[in-house]
Amino acid sequence: MALASRHLLGLEGMSKQDIQLILDTATSFREILDRPIKKVPTLQGKTIVNLFFESSTRTRTSFELAERRLSADVVNFSAEASSVRKGESLKDTVRNLEMMKIDMVVIRHAAAGAAHFLSRVIDANIINAGDGSHEHPTQALLDMYTLREKLGAIEGHHVCIVGDISHSRVALSNIYGLQTMGARVSVCGPKTLIPRCIDQLGVQVYYNIDDAIRDADVLNVLRIQNERHGGTLFPTTREYRRYFGVTRERLEASKKKILIMHPGPINRDVELSADVADGEQSVILQQVLNGVAIRMSILYLLGTHT
Amino acid sequence: MALASRHLLGLEGMSKQDIQLILDTATSFREILDRPIKKVPTLQGKTIVNLFFESSTRTRTSFELAERRLSADVVNFSAEASSVRKGESLKDTVRNLEMMKIDMVVIRHAAAGAAHFLSRVIDANIINAGDGSHEHPTQALLDMYTLREKLGAIEGHHVCIVGDISHSRVALSNIYGLQTMGARVSVCGPKTLIPRCIDQLGVQVYYNIDDAIRDADVLNVLRIQNERHGGTLFPTTREYRRYFGVTRERLEASKKKILIMHPGPINRDVELSADVADGEQSVILQQVLNGVAIRMSILYLLGTHT
Amino acid sequence: MALASRHLLGLEGMSKQDIQLILDTATSFREILDRPIKKVPTLQGKTIVNLFFESSTRTRTSFELAERRLSADVVNFSAEASSVRKGESLKDTVRNLEMMKIDMVVIRHAAAGAAHFLSRVIDANIINAGDGSHEHPTQALLDMYTLREKLGAIEGHHVCIVGDISHSRVALSNIYGLQTMGARVSVCGPKTLIPRCIDQLGVQVYYNIDDAIRDADVLNVLRIQNERHGGTLFPTTREYRRYFGVTRERLEASKKKILIMHPGPINRDVELSADVADGEQSVILQQVLNGVAIRMSILYLLGTHT
Repeated sequence: MALASRHLLGLEGMSKQDIQLILDTATSFREILDRPIKKVPTLQGKTIVNLFFESSTRTRTSFELAERRLSADVVNFSAEASSVRKGESLKDTVRNLEMMKIDMVVIRHAAAGAAHFLSRVIDANIINAGDGSHEHPTQALLDMYTLREKLGAIEGHHVCIVGDISHSRVALSNIYGLQTMGARVSVCGPKTLIPRCIDQLGVQVYYNIDDAIRDADVLNVLRIQNERHGGTLFPTTREYRRYFGVTRERLEASKKKILIMHPGPINRDVELSADVADGEQSVILQQVLNGVAIRMSILYLLGTHT
Repeated sequence: MALASRHLLGLEGMSKQDIQLILDTATSFREILDRPIKKVPTLQGKTIVNLFFESSTRTRTSFELAERRLSADVVNFSAEASSVRKGESLKDTVRNLEMMKIDMVVIRHAAAGAAHFLSRVIDANIINAGDGSHEHPTQALLDMYTLREKLGAIEGHHVCIVGDISHSRVALSNIYGLQTMGARVSVCGPKTLIPRCIDQLGVQVYYNIDDAIRDADVLNVLRIQNERHGGTLFPTTREYRRYFGVTRERLEASKKKILIMHPGPINRDVELSADVADGEQSVILQQVLNGVAIRMSILYLLGTHT
Repeated sequence: MALASRHLLGLEGMSKQDIQLILDTATSFREILDRPIKKVPTLQGKTIVNLFFESSTRTRTSFELAERRLSADVVNFSAEASSVRKGESLKDTVRNLEMMKIDMVVIRHAAAGAAHFLSRVIDANIINAGDGSHEHPTQALLDMYTLREKLGAIEGHHVCIVGDISHSRVALSNIYGLQTMGARVSVCGPKTLIPRCIDQLGVQVYYNIDDAIRDADVLNVLRIQNERHGGTLFPTTREYRRYFGVTRERLEASKKKILIMHPGPINRDVELSADVADGEQSVILQQVLNGVAIRMSILYLLGTHT
């Protein structure tokens, strides 16, 4: 079996079968990660470039580990030390890399559509590791993998995404993927952080976190990115925490034991209280582990795509 | 057969036989780059340090890919995160690296002569990846490889180098190499960017780009490096483009279809119009591909030098 | 035989047998470094993360070379391009790395105790590559290895550490290690740079460098770190050199030929005159070489610890 596309650009429009294939393949790699020797020769002789135009730790490291464990050759390219500073266009940068006969490009870029653009101008397999406020498909896939692992199935469950929905590529990819897999998706946050057209995606909106906690099976709590829009969209982090922070008290007021997810890095005691982040309902560290398996799965499926 | 020197410091004084050997060996590696598995075990167990004191994308990535495809162990060292900031001398930095038993050093440095200096103080093979305004021998070798590939031979052809000749290590290495191989070399640019002593190298000077286009078989168009000397040597980039920019109109006014080379990154619509850069006379992307093969050739010839 | 601990956090409290085992194992790796192929498959399939929160050249490169020569997979993580800038805690950063199933972490951090902290929160083997002004155990081990190599034994010899003892992790690790191995340890420097409680460690203090040169078998000369405390602890580097600089004249006034060590990078003609650094009594470059062997030894002993 093979994926419909040679690229992973986003979850919008990806079929249920393709998502299922990625998740099922990840299960095999997840087992490999528990072995003493976590390396397989699958992508030996293939060259993968990690092209990160925004700084990142966990996503880049997760991809790099996945690539090395598949025995690929890895070249890291960060925008800081590059010709990008000399004013070179993305197209020129990447066509140059392509001429050096690379096989795959993992790209993170501040512009929505950067990965799609690349897939049209070069021949390598392209993996979107986050494009602006658009999509971050590997994050959504690892979230779904973790959900399926913990609840047995994706279908029929209700996931509420909490926080800055307007600026979140994690939210959008999760909405597309979860709906395709038959889950119910809602969002929760202050009005200023919820896009107006969100109901057109078939997504329910909560403005009250306690209502969301009461109804959902999973909360996927997003990071409040103070560093991005400087707090202009809500008064203070203190006020955000008061109205939308996920705390032990709020969770205990509910009868159900819902799962708590977070794509990281966490602002402890802002969007999520520290005791919840480290508590028994949290699957945040499992998400990190599953992220490596999901990325190995995607690299494998695309790298052996014919 | 072996090269006369254990190092590649520059093309000044390099024999025709040595250049021929590098180009011929690159042909084998060029074929390897078209295979699905582009890796050979030639330099397994050898350690190569990429010592870049100036930021670079394409040259460093090209070397790194060449090194990995020869199965060498690669250590990247950039000046930003290093003891260089603590005031350590180049000699101390490199003697330390040498004591760690490295086999080869690829060095880029702002000071002319940096690679020569290293070759006198340490035992490893040294490859000059650009030293100030002096030499950039691998760039000139890949230019010559591309010329030979496209025109069948280097001898007897006329290459005109266009742009800031005074500050260009690409220009100087090309002049040395091309003349040794029997090509005719000229330069073209504003008077302020042509060194006065250039005729002593046996190089003709054009101050009019149309004359150069009429006479030459190849234009090697250099990047106008605004970031280096801040535009003080010519009035504006607009004026530069008007008098020296290589455009479709100018090329069509000539009867011959000359080849267009550029070492990159391109300032589109400054020294080279975008349609020419992407047009059928341009061999710019072939240069990038051949660059990996040339660097594999040099690493192989020096790494197995006895 | 195995080390008592799964981690290398410091030399305080490490047994004589453990230090002996590390030094003896390093001897085998030292021999491998003289072979044409310096690579062994010992740590194949293991993942090591170099987690450097302070910039470093020689220590990071030395570790990275040691890791690659043991065939480990290496991921470099520098604080500059990471979530640390987004305010993530050290604990969260490292627990995330741990979930990605890494085997060993080499950490350098400005906070004393950072490596100890990590060893309590994550399962990987932790190696301290310098924590604040606390310990730098691999440096002290390579210093002791070099001393043993040159003088035949550690026991019974007198090592004087010269310079800023108060802020030096190299000094503290050497004091612990050398005393455990039966050496006599003294320190020498201006009063402002010697901690008051130093005599409680059983360490003699010299305020006169000529007395230290007369009595000691080895001078371990520390770098004056102007970049750290801005020269506020002694008047000028000129005055420091006058009273504590180790010069040829001072060494020649002594009858014994003592060994000169320095952890690098050297401030030539400040704490050490250039002719002494390059002279026959200096073992500074041997220290660098032995550093790779010591690090291979530690990585091997911890990586195969059961």
